[in-house]
Amino acid sequence: MPEVRLNVVTGDWVIIATERAKRPEDFSHKKEKKEVPQYVETCPFCPGNENQTPDETFRINDGHGNWMVRSVPNKFSALSPGGEIIKSKIDFKQYISGVGLHEVIIETPEHNKTTALLPPSHIEKVLFAYKDRQLAFYNDERVEHVIIFKNHGAGAGTSLEHPHSQIVGTPVFPGQVMMRLGEAIRNYYYVNFGECLYCAYLHGEIKDRERIVCENDSFVAFVPYAALSPFHLWIFPKTHNACFALVNEKEISDLAFILKDVLLRLYIGLENPDFNYAVRSLSPRGADSKYFHWYIAIVPRVTQAAGFELGTGMFINTAMPEKSAEFLRNIDTQS
Amino acid sequence: MPEVRLNVVTGDWVIIATERAKRPEDFSHKKEKKEVPQYVETCPFCPGNENQTPDETFRINDGHGNWMVRSVPNKFSALSPGGEIIKSKIDFKQYISGVGLHEVIIETPEHNKTTALLPPSHIEKVLFAYKDRQLAFYNDERVEHVIIFKNHGAGAGTSLEHPHSQIVGTPVFPGQVMMRLGEAIRNYYYVNFGECLYCAYLHGEIKDRERIVCENDSFVAFVPYAALSPFHLWIFPKTHNACFALVNEKEISDLAFILKDVLLRLYIGLENPDFNYAVRSLSPRGADSKYFHWYIAIVPRVTQAAGFELGTGMFINTAMPEKSAEFLRNIDTQS
Repeated sequence: MPEVRLNVVTGDWVIIATERAKRPEDFSHKKEKKEVPQYVETCPFCPGNENQTPDETFRINDGHGNWMVRSVPNKFSALSPGGEIIKSKIDFKQYISGVGLHEVIIETPEHNKTTALLPPSHIEKVLFAYKDRQLAFYNDERVEHVIIFKNHGAGAGTSLEHPHSQIVGTPVFPGQVMMRLGEAIRNYYYVNFGECLYCAYLHGEIKDRERIVCENDSFVAFVPYAALSPFHLWIFPKTHNACFALVNEKEISDLAFILKDVLLRLYIGLENPDFNYAVRSLSPRGADSKYFHWYIAIVPRVTQAAGFELGTGMFINTAMPEKSAEFLRNIDTQS
Repeated sequence: MPEVRLNVVTGDWVIIATERAKRPEDFSHKKEKKEVPQYVETCPFCPGNENQTPDETFRINDGHGNWMVRSVPNKFSALSPGGEIIKSKIDFKQYISGVGLHEVIIETPEHNKTTALLPPSHIEKVLFAYKDRQLAFYNDERVEHVIIFKNHGAGAGTSLEHPHSQIVGTPVFPGQVMMRLGEAIRNYYYVNFGECLYCAYLHGEIKDRERIVCENDSFVAFVPYAALSPFHLWIFPKTHNACFALVNEKEISDLAFILKDVLLRLYIGLENPDFNYAVRSLSPRGADSKYFHWYIAIVPRVTQAAGFELGTGMFINTAMPEKSAEFLRNIDTQS
């Protein structure tokens, strides 16, 4: 019998279609193995081509004059960095000028060093870039919301192979995030007696243990009870905090370890799958800090949303979350 | 300057990224043209293989003993048709047994007759099947919500080439639909002084005209002002009605014409793109009939959602809705 599970954090029902369930290893892409070179002459993100990107906004050097991580405005920005906010409403046509910020964070000079293969000490630098840019974006008063995300592989919507993340600051607060915040506030007061919904949920997942993939002092990585798709993963900070950019140095270090660990498990277990991740966070300005809890959502693109998802917003997950978690937990990342 | 537009019906903001905009014809798939045969011996939906599907629940014959349209339970059902609703909540783990209905509507005996190429008189039969099955599904008291949808092409999540739609009855009311209904009720009372939000919005689109693709007595097909993606289309009935299955014969006939017209424009203009469509509707039981308005949403899969969409629920549309509509309006469907 399939189960329809509720995600208490998002309010979404998910069909866990156990009758159609596949074994975890069936989701492996088994792509043709392609040797990716360390350097590509025509890649705008490879060293030597720095003049092909707009002017750098952030960089971390290695101490020998070479950059390790850099951030640059996106050449094909979705939003315009210059200009003023103009709001207009004529009948039903309501819009705001597309003013906003959009940068690309180039994670490493090496073209073939996907995040799963970078040492944690290097991933820390990437996370410092996330933090710096998120704070800088929120300092722009035209920016209402900032999202940090990564698209890995053609199936996840990127055409650029060189490891990179993106950060976008929008002049509007997304409706979906607003809805999540509303749920979180309601739960804070009416369900959890003054406890953050995410904290309460995390305590439940930690108590259950069976969906946890790995854990360290500051973070827990798990397949949520109502995961939307096979190997859908959440990384939650154990300390309540609504804004990613407020993490301290110890947390950055712990996050680098757990992010690498999780991505390496996917890399080995599913043979370098295409994936997206997003850092869900509110602003450091702090008004909503009691209710919301920042986290990272990782979605390997091993199945496809179709008409059912389009028409209902619900998902059909063809893998048991407990089995997905067990599979990832048992990957040997040391050999 | 890009525009960030609000969809007043869904409450979603969409970035219309005009700086990155492509010409409408750039979205054409330009797939390798493959001759699809009229009959495939191994196809479970082709005539002669009726015994490969579970027992038929609905059929329309041609008057010579041959079926034109048939509906059968999905062999790989996402939900279990037998069994009782069991609800459980232990800590944060809330679920309901995966009881529900899931059928496949085989639209034509001819393997290669995609909906765009069927005559309207045949599409009427498909729509009668939709209507019959939707009513039958809602007659099952375990069913809370029914969604009808179509996945066309591998990029839209189907592996079966033979033209078919699907209908699913879920034992839960989807959170996203609940949110939409909430918005619609709020607007009905507080914004529109007793007018359905969808009716008010449709009147606006009709007055503007520039995003309308085609129209007949009962329906309007248009690219919404805040379209989520290039060629995202809505077909709205002009008469207020919350439930698809309550359409009358004239409306079925008009819907068959406009659906064929729209799908043929996509077929010609974008060279048979992969697409999904969904019939968004509430139950005929009618409690919410004043607020909600059924409609069809069509999404050609010409671009890909990625980390930005995952993290915010917002979309970036790289085509101007007005230009998408103009392109489709100008397709010659007669030659």
